[in-house]
Amino acid sequence: MFLTRTEYDRGVNTFSPEGRLFQVEYAIEAIKLGSTAIGIKTKDGVVLAVEKRITSPLLEPSSVEKIMEIDDHIGCAMSGLIADARTLVEHARVETQNHRFSYGEPMTVESTTQALCDLALRFGEGDEESMSRPFGVSLLIAGHDENGPSLYYTDPSGTFWQCNAKAIGSGSEGADSSLQEQFNKELTLLEAETIALSILKQVMEEKVTPNNVDIAKVAPTYHLYTPSEVEAVITRL
Amino acid sequence: MFLTRTEYDRGVNTFSPEGRLFQVEYAIEAIKLGSTAIGIKTKDGVVLAVEKRITSPLLEPSSVEKIMEIDDHIGCAMSGLIADARTLVEHARVETQNHRFSYGEPMTVESTTQALCDLALRFGEGDEESMSRPFGVSLLIAGHDENGPSLYYTDPSGTFWQCNAKAIGSGSEGADSSLQEQFNKELTLLEAETIALSILKQVMEEKVTPNNVDIAKVAPTYHLYTPSEVEAVITRL
Amino acid sequence: MFLTRTEYDRGVNTFSPEGRLFQVEYAIEAIKLGSTAIGIKTKDGVVLAVEKRITSPLLEPSSVEKIMEIDDHIGCAMSGLIADARTLVEHARVETQNHRFSYGEPMTVESTTQALCDLALRFGEGDEESMSRPFGVSLLIAGHDENGPSLYYTDPSGTFWQCNAKAIGSGSEGADSSLQEQFNKELTLLEAETIALSILKQVMEEKVTPNNVDIAKVAPTYHLYTPSEVEAVITRL
Amino acid sequence: MFLTRTEYDRGVNTFSPEGRLFQVEYAIEAIKLGSTAIGIKTKDGVVLAVEKRITSPLLEPSSVEKIMEIDDHIGCAMSGLIADARTLVEHARVETQNHRFSYGEPMTVESTTQALCDLALRFGEGDEESMSRPFGVSLLIAGHDENGPSLYYTDPSGTFWQCNAKAIGSGSEGADSSLQEQFNKELTLLEAETIALSILKQVMEEKVTPNNVDIAKVAPTYHLYTPSEVEAVITRL
Amino acid sequence: MFLTRTEYDRGVNTFSPEGRLFQVEYAIEAIKLGSTAIGIKTKDGVVLAVEKRITSPLLEPSSVEKIMEIDDHIGCAMSGLIADARTLVEHARVETQNHRFSYGEPMTVESTTQALCDLALRFGEGDEESMSRPFGVSLLIAGHDENGPSLYYTDPSGTFWQCNAKAIGSGSEGADSSLQEQFNKELTLLEAETIALSILKQVMEEKVTPNNVDIAKVAPTYHLYTPSEVEAVITRL
Amino acid sequence: MFLTRTEYDRGVNTFSPEGRLFQVEYAIEAIKLGSTAIGIKTKDGVVLAVEKRITSPLLEPSSVEKIMEIDDHIGCAMSGLIADARTLVEHARVETQNHRFSYGEPMTVESTTQALCDLALRFGEGDEESMSRPFGVSLLIAGHDENGPSLYYTDPSGTFWQCNAKAIGSGSEGADSSLQEQFNKELTLLEAETIALSILKQVMEEKVTPNNVDIAKVAPTYHLYTPSEVEAVITRL
Amino acid sequence: MFLTRTEYDRGVNTFSPEGRLFQVEYAIEAIKLGSTAIGIKTKDGVVLAVEKRITSPLLEPSSVEKIMEIDDHIGCAMSGLIADARTLVEHARVETQNHRFSYGEPMTVESTTQALCDLALRFGEGDEESMSRPFGVSLLIAGHDENGPSLYYTDPSGTFWQCNAKAIGSGSEGADSSLQEQFNKELTLLEAETIALSILKQVMEEKVTPNNVDIAKVAPTYHLYTPSEVEAVITRL
Repeated sequence: MFLTRTEYDRGVNTFSPEGRLFQVEYAIEAIKLGSTAIGIKTKDGVVLAVEKRITSPLLEPSSVEKIMEIDDHIGCAMSGLIADARTLVEHARVETQNHRFSYGEPMTVESTTQALCDLALRFGEGDEESMSRPFGVSLLIAGHDENGPSLYYTDPSGTFWQCNAKAIGSGSEGADSSLQEQFNKELTLLEAETIALSILKQVMEEKVTPNNVDIAKVAPTYHLYTPSEVEAVITRL
Repeated sequence: MFLTRTEYDRGVNTFSPEGRLFQVEYAIEAIKLGSTAIGIKTKDGVVLAVEKRITSPLLEPSSVEKIMEIDDHIGCAMSGLIADARTLVEHARVETQNHRFSYGEPMTVESTTQALCDLALRFGEGDEESMSRPFGVSLLIAGHDENGPSLYYTDPSGTFWQCNAKAIGSGSEGADSSLQEQFNKELTLLEAETIALSILKQVMEEKVTPNNVDIAKVAPTYHLYTPSEVEAVITRL
Repeated sequence: MFLTRTEYDRGVNTFSPEGRLFQVEYAIEAIKLGSTAIGIKTKDGVVLAVEKRITSPLLEPSSVEKIMEIDDHIGCAMSGLIADARTLVEHARVETQNHRFSYGEPMTVESTTQALCDLALRFGEGDEESMSRPFGVSLLIAGHDENGPSLYYTDPSGTFWQCNAKAIGSGSEGADSSLQEQFNKELTLLEAETIALSILKQVMEEKVTPNNVDIAKVAPTYHLYTPSEVEAVITRL
Repeated sequence: MFLTRTEYDRGVNTFSPEGRLFQVEYAIEAIKLGSTAIGIKTKDGVVLAVEKRITSPLLEPSSVEKIMEIDDHIGCAMSGLIADARTLVEHARVETQNHRFSYGEPMTVESTTQALCDLALRFGEGDEESMSRPFGVSLLIAGHDENGPSLYYTDPSGTFWQCNAKAIGSGSEGADSSLQEQFNKELTLLEAETIALSILKQVMEEKVTPNNVDIAKVAPTYHLYTPSEVEAVITRL
Repeated sequence: MFLTRTEYDRGVNTFSPEGRLFQVEYAIEAIKLGSTAIGIKTKDGVVLAVEKRITSPLLEPSSVEKIMEIDDHIGCAMSGLIADARTLVEHARVETQNHRFSYGEPMTVESTTQALCDLALRFGEGDEESMSRPFGVSLLIAGHDENGPSLYYTDPSGTFWQCNAKAIGSGSEGADSSLQEQFNKELTLLEAETIALSILKQVMEEKVTPNNVDIAKVAPTYHLYTPSEVEAVITRL
Repeated sequence: MFLTRTEYDRGVNTFSPEGRLFQVEYAIEAIKLGSTAIGIKTKDGVVLAVEKRITSPLLEPSSVEKIMEIDDHIGCAMSGLIADARTLVEHARVETQNHRFSYGEPMTVESTTQALCDLALRFGEGDEESMSRPFGVSLLIAGHDENGPSLYYTDPSGTFWQCNAKAIGSGSEGADSSLQEQFNKELTLLEAETIALSILKQVMEEKVTPNNVDIAKVAPTYHLYTPSEVEAVITRL
Repeated sequence: MFLTRTEYDRGVNTFSPEGRLFQVEYAIEAIKLGSTAIGIKTKDGVVLAVEKRITSPLLEPSSVEKIMEIDDHIGCAMSGLIADARTLVEHARVETQNHRFSYGEPMTVESTTQALCDLALRFGEGDEESMSRPFGVSLLIAGHDENGPSLYYTDPSGTFWQCNAKAIGSGSEGADSSLQEQFNKELTLLEAETIALSILKQVMEEKVTPNNVDIAKVAPTYHLYTPSEVEAVITRL
């Protein structure tokens, strides 16, 4: 007789009899509650778009940061626990700065992603940098390096994949289907902006405004769109 | 079959199957028991106002400190466990002093808020500065730096948001509604004082006196109102 | 379904679903079993008076110390676990001595109280100075510094308040009511002595003698009354 | 009366009454859920082939790395948790680089395998490099050193075996039977490629394409096949 | 609904809902199983007397040490776990030796007692000198310093009291009553010896002989009575 | 009422009420599942023989090492968890090398065995070298030093015995009986080889071949038999 | 309602409500399963005799060491877990060697015994030298120093007693009675040897031979009897 699954989740990093890590699976649930974020890679650069969920009109929209710069050539969109994401991003910023200092050149997007995932994997270990639970956050990491533009997707288990396009968060299922229909490798950055925002619009419950979405691109450097630039994309829809 | 929610809360920093962190949610409950605090940002500065709950006539009202200075240009109002808040404020004071010493300039309000939240996020980690449980306190951080006045709101999860106006504590629900009705970006500091105190008056069970409320402003430096300055605001109501 | 309250108390420093810290509440229970202590602040100084509970005629009354000197200008009365109180007082003595040595001036009463509460707050953290449980003691800290006389009251949660008068221990409820009736800001030290002892007399089960009460004042330096000085106060009742 | 087996698995590294280590057995279950990988040793070198499981057409196939280089003369195929495998591979890369640096010659394949298994064995020990649970991954380590080509198979218990051919992952049972039928010591590298891919084809649910399989050889240096090289092998089937 | 008391005792140093520390109370039970010890303070010095419980005629009576010297001017009688007592005494010996070395004068009896109690209080803290449970021993500490003779009584909670006379161990209840009847401040050392032994005789099940009791005095230096000196006291009864 | 035995085994190193250490007993169970190993001491040297359990025809028989060299003059046969055995052997190799380096002479066989057992005894202690559970392995340690040939047997409790002959593993019961019948002190090495292999043959389910047994001797230096040397012994049976 | 006793034993070093330490009591049970050992002190020296329990005719009797030398002038006989005893003896050997090195003279027998008991007392403390459970062994420590011959008996609680004669292990109850009848202070060493062996003979199930008993004396230096010296004593019976 097996214990029911729920009895395995309290050893934060322990296998169940079926070979599963429940704390990681639960952290993934935390992301399913998060706001939707979308990334699309084009030959000219990568576009990131996120839903911001401004829960009160008194909130400063610009302070709800769900797209953040890691380095000149790398940015990321997040879904899940924002405080966890900030810790990962801060870790990545230190890593990329150290790399520039030590080697005189920018860190590749893959190495940066690997550094983030190394930290995510080691939860429950008790050493200084790791958390006592999985990081409850998924990231879409957009970057541009010697290999051209690239888009990575990470999950709380510390695994990462390179993608052409990807959606995360509560609306990710529908958004991923739309992305598969609309993506092709010849998209321009402009088309990618429009697709990202039109899909976001479908999964959001509110009307899209420059206040409740953020858009950024890495092409080849990171740029977060100003409200009027976002407005311009909305107009194109 | 899932365990009932209560069985997840004793691993202090563990996800439930639905992706929730119960100890953080319980800490948020502690704040719902706390006294009400209100912050309003104007173009000229930020106003903070708190209810003091003087439980005995023998208590020295000035010793019930629920608004504290962090640095010349930053103050904060708190709701929840006062001893926890003092620890966070003390940590922030050290950070801002170190920053002045190292860089010869004041720390920005956002960096100060981030430093507070970093400490709050790391509960249950066993390292020297962190607590073995979440900090049971929310803060309204008012400051003024190169970007002008700003108001931040932090919760026990280590997340923070920038706001135009915000209420925390037991009366926060009603107070937030009133703030949404009465706030506009053209408020003067004087008007903000009046609004803050009139809303506090609605949620307090007692008559408002200079003894049971505190008011402070950061405009552009921190100033805690004297009893007669508070009296003046009360008179205006 | 919530667990019953008792299942939350064994994680020494964990929130219950209602946002409560039960180990702190239980430590407060320990104090309700303790002997009564009373503090009264006057414009000339502060008076402390305690019940001594001499359980056996073979006990040396002077060795039942429930009022202790912290520094020349600070003393404290205690209720609860005496061994815990001694640890706190010893910590405060080291802090005040270090302060004198480093700064060439006495530590303020508030800083001394804060230092005591910092230690009390950090129970269950596993570092060298903290306890593995809350300190089961409340203190009335009487002092005199550049701000004149002051009286602080601390509880096991590490919170402190400044008071004009305060009673702690098993008889505190009745004693606090009497203090509210009889206290006014113009009391002389002599009147404060009389009030403190007369209230103590009401809550004690035995006849008051120089053997079973202690009185001290900080005015402006700490002085523990000799048996004949106590006798003199008793005579005045 | 014995406890049921499931009650032994939460002490991560504890024997059951029958002398079993359940966490290791559960980690082995994690591998049974993994993609299939095959290794075949020939007199001219070793061939590795893996199924890649591209779950979305938007995923970059080349970023699903299930065959990785450890050193010039050593590569490995993996099945199970990819993030765990990356940690082991990274550890092995450091070890082989250190060995080259210290001794001026490549590390033998067996020593490299032993170093990986030492790390795998020490789970639950709390020291800096080890994990708090078993590594949920099996590896096929292919290499070429002074003893000629060799193929090692490791499991989560930290045990390793040298093999002539071996399959791991969800399709390993059927694949191992096929390998026993088709393997002989006189196979050429070309024949080994064809056998590996034809067996992989049997256990995969999809059509084999250069996108969903990877092939590599160590003969005598590590080489990951380009899509067209994979296409060539597919054509030969 | 409260848990029954027994469920609180396994967190070694945790409050019960009523504010009690059960492990300390259980340690006190260990002492109630111990042999009886008696101390009497006179104006000329302090007398200690203990029952020795020689369980086998093959035991060397002199090796059952229940009165031990701490320093020239301090000795102690013990009841409870002998190995625990030895650890405390050894700690006190080091403290008094260090004090003599650092200050060139003997440590006072109260400071020595405080040092013992500091160690006793810190059980369950995990630092190097403390025990993982309370010390299961009570001590009667007899000494002579600049304040003349003194007698202290310590219990497992780390609390101490100064006494004129005190009994500990299984026969302490009856012995304490007898002491209250027979003690007066004018007793000579000789009378104290006789009273101590006559009370011990009442609570012991066996006939009193130089083999099954020990007597010591600090007057003003520590002296353990020889068998013939004990015999002399027995004869006086 | 006692708990059933199974409730004592999860404190890895805790006595049961009957004075038993269950984790050690369970580790011994792990060995009863292991392959059989036999050691025989003669006046000319020691012979070790093991069953190899080649579970797949694709496994490289020589990589299933169940007899390993510790130093020139010491070898050991193992039964149980191979990865655990490798850790012990590696520890012993370091110890013997250090001894040679420090003292310029080989370590005695008993000291080597003691060093292995010291490590085995300290499981569950949390220090760097020890395991968090008992080592699930028994060893037969064959050596030759200044006292001539010797054979030691170790078990998971860290106990060792010197033997003239000994069998361990799943077939040890029958094999030990046979050894008692056939052993005498005048055996030659050649006779010992034959006896060891003939007994192994009885307890193995398969036909004995150079592939599924290993033989080694220490006479006076360690030598692992080549397949043809093993073949020669098989032929003599 | 008390928990049943068995629920207290898993906190390795925790009092039960009756003031008992169950892990220590269970360790004492381990000794009751051990082989019998006897010690007798005479005016000329101390004799130790032990039963060896040779479980297999293939075991080397001399390797079953149950009497071990600690220093020239101290030896000990043991009953219980042999691996635990070896750790204690090794600790004592280091202590006595260090003492000789530091002070240029042998350590007294009592100090050596105290050092052993200090280590035994501190189980469950997590520091480097202590065990995570009580040592499951009792020792009879025989020595000769400036105070002449002495015999000490230690148990798993870290308590020790000086004895004239003592038996430990499974036959200790009967053996102790016999010792009480036959011991007198005028015994010669020769008589003591005969008594020790004749009592051992009564409690052993097998015929006494030089193979299954060991005898040693400290008179004034440690000497383990050769088989022929043992044979001589057997002959005298």
